[in-house]
Amino acid sequence: MSVKLDGNIFVTGTNRGIGLELVKQLAEKTGVKSHIYACCREPEGTGAEALRQLATQYPGKITIIKLDTSDEDSISAAVHTVSERISDAGLNLLINNAAINKPPIPAALADTGKKDMMDVYETNVAGPFLLTKMFLPLLQRAAEKDSSGDKMSCRRSAIINISTLISSMEKCPETFPMAQMYPYRTSKAALNMLTRCQAEDFKSHNILVTAIHPGWVRTAMGGEQAPMTTEDSVLSMLSVMPSLSNKDSGMLLDFEGNRIPW
Amino acid sequence: MSVKLDGNIFVTGTNRGIGLELVKQLAEKTGVKSHIYACCREPEGTGAEALRQLATQYPGKITIIKLDTSDEDSISAAVHTVSERISDAGLNLLINNAAINKPPIPAALADTGKKDMMDVYETNVAGPFLLTKMFLPLLQRAAEKDSSGDKMSCRRSAIINISTLISSMEKCPETFPMAQMYPYRTSKAALNMLTRCQAEDFKSHNILVTAIHPGWVRTAMGGEQAPMTTEDSVLSMLSVMPSLSNKDSGMLLDFEGNRIPW
Repeated sequence: MSVKLDGNIFVTGTNRGIGLELVKQLAEKTGVKSHIYACCREPEGTGAEALRQLATQYPGKITIIKLDTSDEDSISAAVHTVSERISDAGLNLLINNAAINKPPIPAALADTGKKDMMDVYETNVAGPFLLTKMFLPLLQRAAEKDSSGDKMSCRRSAIINISTLISSMEKCPETFPMAQMYPYRTSKAALNMLTRCQAEDFKSHNILVTAIHPGWVRTAMGGEQAPMTTEDSVLSMLSVMPSLSNKDSGMLLDFEGNRIPW
Repeated sequence: MSVKLDGNIFVTGTNRGIGLELVKQLAEKTGVKSHIYACCREPEGTGAEALRQLATQYPGKITIIKLDTSDEDSISAAVHTVSERISDAGLNLLINNAAINKPPIPAALADTGKKDMMDVYETNVAGPFLLTKMFLPLLQRAAEKDSSGDKMSCRRSAIINISTLISSMEKCPETFPMAQMYPYRTSKAALNMLTRCQAEDFKSHNILVTAIHPGWVRTAMGGEQAPMTTEDSVLSMLSVMPSLSNKDSGMLLDFEGNRIPW
């Protein structure tokens, strides 16, 4: 049976798109004891105005944190700030949502260079790798404070890595023609492997790790022809997350909770 | 029915281990018209002595090429050198073998930093991506000169990406405990996706692209406790390669030609 999400929740890439909507719906739906740490690269910039409004709308429930996941010092500073505030309670849910994609879709081979490959990997894989590593003590603390034995959940201690359907090797022949996206695809396949490794590594701590495909969503990245709104995508993902348990750790699921083949 | 490998063959990372053995056995087994371009970072260095001896042993059959796959200019220069020599014939077989792994095995989370993630990705994924992209015109030429319709083969035009069993997401729970290797695993999962993408992208050119796991081999990377010699690994891979056809393009196979699940 699913329960509400609760506790300390940290979400990356929240100034727009899916990340912003995650913060909005989490602020609405989580319990009074929960707190959302909403990250973006430039909290003071014009691009974060909607996020700042949201923080004002839910006083005491949302803290905006400056974070550039491609910058090691920035990650370190963000983790330090959050650690000081929640050291006793620990971190219950880390959502690695921040990601980049370039060059413009369909990102064919001819348009893609080495820098694209490296930049996308840095933000989409090395960022979540490092952030999660640094948050591990706080995730462990949250897991330890819970008395539910070896039962994993997003309410207890969990890492959600936002992945994509096009990270699926199995489905590549179907999805490749409309979006080549070499840097993005390779980075998200690597993120799936990271998810797999983290799930194995952290299972003795009872920390759940799951990769989720949010759907093809109408965002700056998804494009205008995408069939799904950010609202519906996040509604769906937030109804799946509370139902996740041990069997879902190390898996790639879609926004309805169905397994996607590697 | 399998035929001998032949034509122009380019192999990276050939100063030692599997790469050196590939050059040795290819020199022995390929036809008189074949030529092997054997790459390493420092052709003049002490680490390349065995390779230089091999080149002397097979005069006119092996050309040593300076190549650092983590360096874009170095890739560009190597492709230029080879292009000038074989522009008419094209390149028949590109073996992306060069790879790094760090920190020391088992490379647990605590021992792994961002730089490890980035360095390993640069050599193991961005390198093969760029080298293959630059060689594409020569691979196309080789494919076009062949009159076998849409039949792909390693003799006609092919890319072999040397991958690993531990790139398999499916098998991660089995393989993780003995070798965590976050940077290596994520890079090789990304290399598998690159293989998948290249296979889709190049199929209209009749270029075969397959990822091969060489086995757990007694090399500097594989360690002394590995059960397989480089000789046996290469013997096996070179008996599989000539038998590869369209059905194997975009797949991950082991050294005996069996499919490994993603």
